[in-house]
Amino acid sequence: MSLTNGSPEAAAAAARDASFTLASLPASARNEALDAIHAALTASKDEILAANARDLELARKAAADGTLSQALVSRLDLGKKGKWEDMLQGILDVRDLEDPVGKTQLRTKLDDDLILERVSCPIGVLLIIFEARPEVIANIASLAIKSGNAAILKGGKESTESFIAISQVISSALSKTQVPNSAIQLVTTRDAISQLLSQDRNIDLVIPRGSNELVRYIKENTKIPVLGHADGLCSIYLTATADKHKAAVAIVDSKTSYPAACNSVETLLVQDQALVTIFPGVAAALADKGVTLRLDGPSKAALAGVPLPEGTVQDATPQDYDTEHLSLTLAVKTVSSVDEAIAHINAHGSHHTDSIFTADGAEAEHFMNRVDSAGVYWNASTRLADGMRYGFGTEVGISTNKIHSRGPVGLDGLTIYKYKIRGDYQPTTAYGEGEGKRPWKHERLAF
Amino acid sequence: MSLTNGSPEAAAAAARDASFTLASLPASARNEALDAIHAALTASKDEILAANARDLELARKAAADGTLSQALVSRLDLGKKGKWEDMLQGILDVRDLEDPVGKTQLRTKLDDDLILERVSCPIGVLLIIFEARPEVIANIASLAIKSGNAAILKGGKESTESFIAISQVISSALSKTQVPNSAIQLVTTRDAISQLLSQDRNIDLVIPRGSNELVRYIKENTKIPVLGHADGLCSIYLTATADKHKAAVAIVDSKTSYPAACNSVETLLVQDQALVTIFPGVAAALADKGVTLRLDGPSKAALAGVPLPEGTVQDATPQDYDTEHLSLTLAVKTVSSVDEAIAHINAHGSHHTDSIFTADGAEAEHFMNRVDSAGVYWNASTRLADGMRYGFGTEVGISTNKIHSRGPVGLDGLTIYKYKIRGDYQPTTAYGEGEGKRPWKHERLAF
Repeated sequence: MSLTNGSPEAAAAAARDASFTLASLPASARNEALDAIHAALTASKDEILAANARDLELARKAAADGTLSQALVSRLDLGKKGKWEDMLQGILDVRDLEDPVGKTQLRTKLDDDLILERVSCPIGVLLIIFEARPEVIANIASLAIKSGNAAILKGGKESTESFIAISQVISSALSKTQVPNSAIQLVTTRDAISQLLSQDRNIDLVIPRGSNELVRYIKENTKIPVLGHADGLCSIYLTATADKHKAAVAIVDSKTSYPAACNSVETLLVQDQALVTIFPGVAAALADKGVTLRLDGPSKAALAGVPLPEGTVQDATPQDYDTEHLSLTLAVKTVSSVDEAIAHINAHGSHHTDSIFTADGAEAEHFMNRVDSAGVYWNASTRLADGMRYGFGTEVGISTNKIHSRGPVGLDGLTIYKYKIRGDYQPTTAYGEGEGKRPWKHERLAF
Repeated sequence: MSLTNGSPEAAAAAARDASFTLASLPASARNEALDAIHAALTASKDEILAANARDLELARKAAADGTLSQALVSRLDLGKKGKWEDMLQGILDVRDLEDPVGKTQLRTKLDDDLILERVSCPIGVLLIIFEARPEVIANIASLAIKSGNAAILKGGKESTESFIAISQVISSALSKTQVPNSAIQLVTTRDAISQLLSQDRNIDLVIPRGSNELVRYIKENTKIPVLGHADGLCSIYLTATADKHKAAVAIVDSKTSYPAACNSVETLLVQDQALVTIFPGVAAALADKGVTLRLDGPSKAALAGVPLPEGTVQDATPQDYDTEHLSLTLAVKTVSSVDEAIAHINAHGSHHTDSIFTADGAEAEHFMNRVDSAGVYWNASTRLADGMRYGFGTEVGISTNKIHSRGPVGLDGLTIYKYKIRGDYQPTTAYGEGEGKRPWKHERLAF
């Protein structure tokens, strides 16, 4: 790992060069590098926490001045209970995941002595732009090395001291391994983002990890493919056949277990027939957790006789259905059918994760087939949309893209493939239909 | 299929709406639509060829005036031997391919009654921009319908009459099927391309089929992901251990079997030790087919005593190694090692298809692992890079992208996936490590 104060162009070119070596290292060499990073960070805890303390001091002053949020100060703190240990354990967890590189995906006999293979390989050079949390640097370096990708890291300025300390430790650890030093680079140049985003010749994929504003800025300012989501506007469609009590539990979970998360529910679509049967109980359970409801006419009317804390009931405006509140505010809209719910979700949602609550299996399948989102659920909390929960071990983010990777992206999302052919110099003109031509065998082989 | 003279915005929005219906049709309904198109085109041969004759007449006049190339006139002609029959057969071939939609790719038990599935689905709305060849419209409509994607087609103006005739026939055929009419739209508005390229909310993927200039223009003028390649700068590295006679045959095939194709070889890298042993025979075989060689100093010196037709030997300039000649011109450069060859290819190639000719298996594997191209071959002609030759039945193009699809792209490249979860309203807060929490099961299930 190297610390780049030079030009972003030079960083990208060096990363490209290093990517070829990294891509051809065996899994053992990549895993040894992760062990080395783990050992070095373990040995350097004190100096890294000291650097982190300097970041924290500045951040606390900024928070006292009101120029930085308290939430950000909290995210900066590497000394918080369990955070350091989790960071170290994360490196070992990534090491233990199955190697995503070099997997044969297809093997076809085109002819005798002419074999086609499709083999997974790293994408090349990743640019990862993230905000304050200093532990992300170790996490991302691990994922990149495991997947055989070079990575350029650009972190938020609030964590500069922590990043530099961690990257120096990682750099020194990698120098004793086969992973080239410039395969993982930390760019600390001020305002380097726009220059990095123009390096489409040497950077293959940008992964932003941060606020919606950051992601949107990046998507609008680069020709490099961007993996991620700008918005997480998730919906639940509550039908009259849903289980009354379980539905309330699952909606409370979807809304309140982490309101600022991208997979929290933002819009509740209620079937008109469920307004007086199921919805009041759901509303009461949500209100009990402090949720404010932005209601349309019919749903507001349905709550007329329900005792709810003051302020719970508010009138929805049209923009409530296009807003990712990221807080304890939930927009509620009445619909009369599953097709109306689907149309609303496809038009107003962010194609992230949407769920239907119903006892009718055919209706659920209809919903799951027609809702155009990365996650389509039946009787399940939207909060399930997560790489760890899906069993991927870890994730680099959740994608709402329609190509490459969709939903939670694990190590596989950091790979692509190449086609290998091993032949005996056969001229292609010898093949085809017609006189004197050889037919292609196109025989699928085991792998 | 509808013929759109209205706004590109309206076309894109209508295609988006139709895509949800198309995506949820069973394979039988999509295949029936292909049968209907096939039958209707068969019945309408005369009127379509009459329309094509009108295009041809204008094109021949333009060619006589020198404003259109003779090659383009030839590509326009639907009446050319076998072309009409090939177009019709192509529809049936696509129909008979395996359904790419609805394939389960992963099934995981997250917990009892909480099952995660990853299922392939269409991408959504494709924009396909192509140049003159009128048969492409039937080909692309078939691929889009088979893969469950809505498509907006924008063809070159030289084929307007043919396109309109074909699209009217297809439109009328589709009206008797379950495929919505606006799922496949032909845009005939003049200069609509730039407006279509701005419809990133309703168009998911652009597939350009045409000249390098067209592809480059599109890549530079849209935020929609583009699937394709701008350049096909392929190389062969000829080592001293290659089979002398077979290598000459395969290099001649790579260069001369279709010089204007993207998978033709443009640069021959010759190991210095092969200059006097193998290269002269290769050069003679190429010269025999009319190939002009642009040589560096050592390779030119190696040919000093070889009798070659006048004009075969020319001096290479640096830009020859960055040029896709698309003609019978081949750049030749001498290198001393496989690593020098790899470095040259990664720096000057277009990441399309590159081949090494050697008897040394370890050297070949080293080359295939380190060359950063969609196709990496050992003792095989670069002309093998083709969906039909790979056994994919058909291709929508060849991608040099590093994400989603790489190399020849078949129907699979027109799909993505969604994650489906079927649950029993479990709250996510019940899971995790620690007291009173349920562990995730993450059990892989058969599918």
